[in-house]
Amino acid sequence: MLERAPAGRDLYALVEDFFASSFSTDNTLITEAVRRMLSAGGKRLRPRIALLAAESVGGVPSEHLRLAAFMELIHVATLIHDDVVDGAETRRGVNATAVDFGNRVSVLAGDYLFAWIFKNVTADYAHPIPHILSATLADITDGEVLQLRSLGELGTTLATYLDVAAKKTASLFAASAECGALAAGGSPFCVKALREFGTSFGIAFQMRDDLLDLTADEATLGKPVGNDLRERKMTVPLVLALEGADREFHADVERFFAGDDEAPERVARIVAGIEAAGGLSKTEAVLAGYVERAKQSLAPLGNAPARAELAALADTLR
Amino acid sequence: MLERAPAGRDLYALVEDFFASSFSTDNTLITEAVRRMLSAGGKRLRPRIALLAAESVGGVPSEHLRLAAFMELIHVATLIHDDVVDGAETRRGVNATAVDFGNRVSVLAGDYLFAWIFKNVTADYAHPIPHILSATLADITDGEVLQLRSLGELGTTLATYLDVAAKKTASLFAASAECGALAAGGSPFCVKALREFGTSFGIAFQMRDDLLDLTADEATLGKPVGNDLRERKMTVPLVLALEGADREFHADVERFFAGDDEAPERVARIVAGIEAAGGLSKTEAVLAGYVERAKQSLAPLGNAPARAELAALADTLR
Repeated sequence: MLERAPAGRDLYALVEDFFASSFSTDNTLITEAVRRMLSAGGKRLRPRIALLAAESVGGVPSEHLRLAAFMELIHVATLIHDDVVDGAETRRGVNATAVDFGNRVSVLAGDYLFAWIFKNVTADYAHPIPHILSATLADITDGEVLQLRSLGELGTTLATYLDVAAKKTASLFAASAECGALAAGGSPFCVKALREFGTSFGIAFQMRDDLLDLTADEATLGKPVGNDLRERKMTVPLVLALEGADREFHADVERFFAGDDEAPERVARIVAGIEAAGGLSKTEAVLAGYVERAKQSLAPLGNAPARAELAALADTLR
Repeated sequence: MLERAPAGRDLYALVEDFFASSFSTDNTLITEAVRRMLSAGGKRLRPRIALLAAESVGGVPSEHLRLAAFMELIHVATLIHDDVVDGAETRRGVNATAVDFGNRVSVLAGDYLFAWIFKNVTADYAHPIPHILSATLADITDGEVLQLRSLGELGTTLATYLDVAAKKTASLFAASAECGALAAGGSPFCVKALREFGTSFGIAFQMRDDLLDLTADEATLGKPVGNDLRERKMTVPLVLALEGADREFHADVERFFAGDDEAPERVARIVAGIEAAGGLSKTEAVLAGYVERAKQSLAPLGNAPARAELAALADTLR
């Protein structure tokens, strides 16, 4: 028997191979748009979590690749629509679908991809998997609308932030873990545990994403640093910074949001203000709490090797 | 016993009452956007066909109102996204969602509505209804992409037109009839007959819509006359006119599509050219053939009173 490769790498390669060899729809224009987004990279965290969840309840990951791929494709479809929604010019470092193909095609490509996914899921999987995925898409969209309404709202609380993050980001991680476990025949107890893992993981993931937007460089991000600030998003470092900040910082953020000076130096001053008000360190602390909760959720899985891999995945968010 | 009201009116009122009393989602912004589109009117043909299909196989229409309402809501969701896609400024005579709320919210509102529908359908209905509805949405979107690619293509054939119309428009009428019959426990034979009715009805409906765009007035249409021409859509009157037209008309249409003179007189000249080339009369003839096919599809239903009502509905398209 061949020695088993480290499972993380293993699953990533499995997912990549699946996309390269098996993804195609009836519409060539849309297949091309999706392939471009897929080939631009991504960590494939959602499918990896689905496969690890299946494995952790005794399933064989390679038997659930299709389901795992649907999780990534739901994510890709929301990104295609985000390109329209935010008028973003780059995504993962490549031109966004909307830039290359126009808004009209982006809306239709996203719609087609959603429909194609549900068409396949409803043909291949029994209740409640199709229901979970459509409820997840409702959550994602609801979260995005809530986020839109809180843009530039300096009074946004941590509770509101968490509500948005749970819906917009964590719901798909939760569904990935839950559906992976369901498809592999996991007990209700384990399925629930994995869903909870996905929720906490997803919130921590969003918080790390918020931090990277302020602290990473453009080459790593594949998008401009401080992009969230320019879009007036109430990210968690900003929310926590404003909680404890003096009037001066508050006023500076207000001016930044109201004005149109988006020069790197101007953005850097806001980032420095967030750091000075403890926004970064407080976020690290809250984030660590969600990583801890994610790992604790896994207790019902006993000693399954995939449990350790899920925990390790959560630790990468610290 | 009270005398039964004419069934057409009856079902219309049932559907309207259902929307007025029972439609609500968890997202207030989206509920409001959908209510506005619903209250702007519409003939509710899709739900009426779903209810008549249920009745024609022995079902009780009032028991299938929810399912029927989903058919209209899928239509509404595609209209909300069409507003973004086409940059339309009015829809059914009221401001489009995109104009009032912005493109970002329109994309999200449509997405949320699709997800909300599928969330409910997957909870309430057994296979294959959720599958039929997601396959239908894939068809609608695929048809819209095909239409986008044939914009201004003077070589578009009737076959291509029919492919687009079948997917973009007829698929939802077909699904409405099919799902109504399925939900009411119709035999496979009757379900298939009703689906075929919906397909032919839908193609005839699209052809009538194409004709009205050229021949009705703005108040009736709720949008400017010749709107399809301005959008360079290859409607069936234009396709059939070009088939038999002289070089001069061909060149005039090319100039119209290439230029930016969209004055009413300029549009009227193209309409006159379509009429002179027989585009209107040929369309009436092809349309009448689809109405006939729709009615012939109903043969397996025997003497069900709802059969006569479906046939009468088809006749209104002549």
